[in-house]
Amino acid sequence: MHKEIIKDIGEKELIRRIAKYMPANQTSDDCAFVESKKEDLLINTDLMVENTHFNQKVISPRDIGWKSVATNYSDLISSGCIEFVGINIGLVLTSDTEWEWVQELYEGFYEALKKFGGAILGGDCSRGENKMISITAIGLQGKLKLRRNACEPGEILLTTGIHGLSKLGLLLKKNQLNIEELNLSEKLINLSIDAFRRPTPKSKILKTIIQSSEFFIKKEIGCTDSSDGFYQAILDLSKESKCKAVIDYQKIPKSDLWPNGERWDQFYFFGGEDYELLISLPRDWAKKLIQLDDRITEIGYFVKGSPNVDIKNYPNQNKLDNNSYSHF
Amino acid sequence: MHKEIIKDIGEKELIRRIAKYMPANQTSDDCAFVESKKEDLLINTDLMVENTHFNQKVISPRDIGWKSVATNYSDLISSGCIEFVGINIGLVLTSDTEWEWVQELYEGFYEALKKFGGAILGGDCSRGENKMISITAIGLQGKLKLRRNACEPGEILLTTGIHGLSKLGLLLKKNQLNIEELNLSEKLINLSIDAFRRPTPKSKILKTIIQSSEFFIKKEIGCTDSSDGFYQAILDLSKESKCKAVIDYQKIPKSDLWPNGERWDQFYFFGGEDYELLISLPRDWAKKLIQLDDRITEIGYFVKGSPNVDIKNYPNQNKLDNNSYSHF
Repeated sequence: MHKEIIKDIGEKELIRRIAKYMPANQTSDDCAFVESKKEDLLINTDLMVENTHFNQKVISPRDIGWKSVATNYSDLISSGCIEFVGINIGLVLTSDTEWEWVQELYEGFYEALKKFGGAILGGDCSRGENKMISITAIGLQGKLKLRRNACEPGEILLTTGIHGLSKLGLLLKKNQLNIEELNLSEKLINLSIDAFRRPTPKSKILKTIIQSSEFFIKKEIGCTDSSDGFYQAILDLSKESKCKAVIDYQKIPKSDLWPNGERWDQFYFFGGEDYELLISLPRDWAKKLIQLDDRITEIGYFVKGSPNVDIKNYPNQNKLDNNSYSHF
Repeated sequence: MHKEIIKDIGEKELIRRIAKYMPANQTSDDCAFVESKKEDLLINTDLMVENTHFNQKVISPRDIGWKSVATNYSDLISSGCIEFVGINIGLVLTSDTEWEWVQELYEGFYEALKKFGGAILGGDCSRGENKMISITAIGLQGKLKLRRNACEPGEILLTTGIHGLSKLGLLLKKNQLNIEELNLSEKLINLSIDAFRRPTPKSKILKTIIQSSEFFIKKEIGCTDSSDGFYQAILDLSKESKCKAVIDYQKIPKSDLWPNGERWDQFYFFGGEDYELLISLPRDWAKKLIQLDDRITEIGYFVKGSPNVDIKNYPNQNKLDNNSYSHF
């Protein structure tokens, strides 16, 4: 079957085809125009580089498209975004890229935008020796600001969900685990692969936080997402807020299907790409929030002290290697 | 001498060093926060890919930094930007990149931002097999909108300056021209290399256009920049505005130093990266504008008809090959 490649299509035709995914009210100009007289803005850029962040053997272009939007939106959410405006896309393609690959990528962007809101605002595309997707997402900043540096001693640390699934999914897709030897259930396998290829940013959590805030007047609360890993997220909150985090290993929520053992703790603590939120709130507010959403779990608290993460009730604390994400 | 490379510095330290170029009011969060309750926004993304847009033998990292900002800002200006908010930077580096290269790049960003306005708002960086810079620039949309599709039959076509210099500069830097054989003056050589490495977006033109508009009530005027080449810019205006452009070859402004001949016309018409503006205005408004800024020149007009560019008074029209920019 003949496959159309980008080199044969040419830049102008490529841009014309891509433009079909943009809303009709965008002009033909290079710039995207955004009406925004009401709210302040949040802006976030994330890169997806072939062979660094993704590999064609492990993830489809449609999933890459979804995931690029999801990861960017997760950053906006963790700053208190109340509405997604959309994304600008910088796309680098090799000249032998098939058009179908590009189309699937854009279908993935489109699926995620349809689910979470916002539109493709504009972008640029170019040839390169490797594929690269640079997404800049824009959202409206709500009145309640979520910030890494807003945690306070005495506050409760909450997580919106469980961790480690995405890392497990990646390793499964890479065939780096022996499923039979590990005796993994099919359900856990499917959950993990879904978490890896179709992460879901916590787009509805802000409304619940605001709903639970009735009697509380903080205008900034401590929050970040766990894209760089569960442990790193808590360490970041602690460092930026200049206080110590204390978490209780026994309180950390896990799937019933999640095996026990050191390796699984490593996946849980340092896996990354989970896109749950870590939230710091005064005790009463935290309790109210948990009442409204039972997926949210109290896992620890902040105290005065040197920025660090203490893990209580963990049998082998010195065995937890902090091999955090680094792309270099 | 020991050179620090990115692989040894690590991602966290790299981000810390880069953060020093950001304004102090930006938080440590992934998202940039932009106060913007007054105006609508213009957003533009441009890519600079190593070996596609730049080559280390031909341009320094400091010039790449300057040029990335300049090209992005030129797109904002050609849509009617009245104030630059700043840029988000997506940066892909090879792991053997020297820190000095990154520092020089950021000095280049900084120089351009200091000159034209705006700040580094945020970004992302990652490892890749080639260097890549993705800039998303944000500006405030003024009341007068400049758009490719707003030219009208009967209007005058203006250019803010001369073309071809940047292409000449590129070829000189690539050692693809015999300077002695061509008998090029040192002044033209320097002008061309400067145009190539340090383009100047027309950041003050909007004020002059508004100043000259006193009795005119159009809220959108036809405009684009000549980043893709002089001819392509006029063709884009014509296509998007669905009318025919007629230009007079004899009226096109040229430097006294610019040689005559087919090759030089090719550079002029199709060279690209010039960042002048092509503007369409009603006759009286155009005259007023030229009175206020004598670098602006009338070069033609628009008429009803199929979108196209007619070149009057050009001896060898059929010899003008339209080999426009394509990155694939």
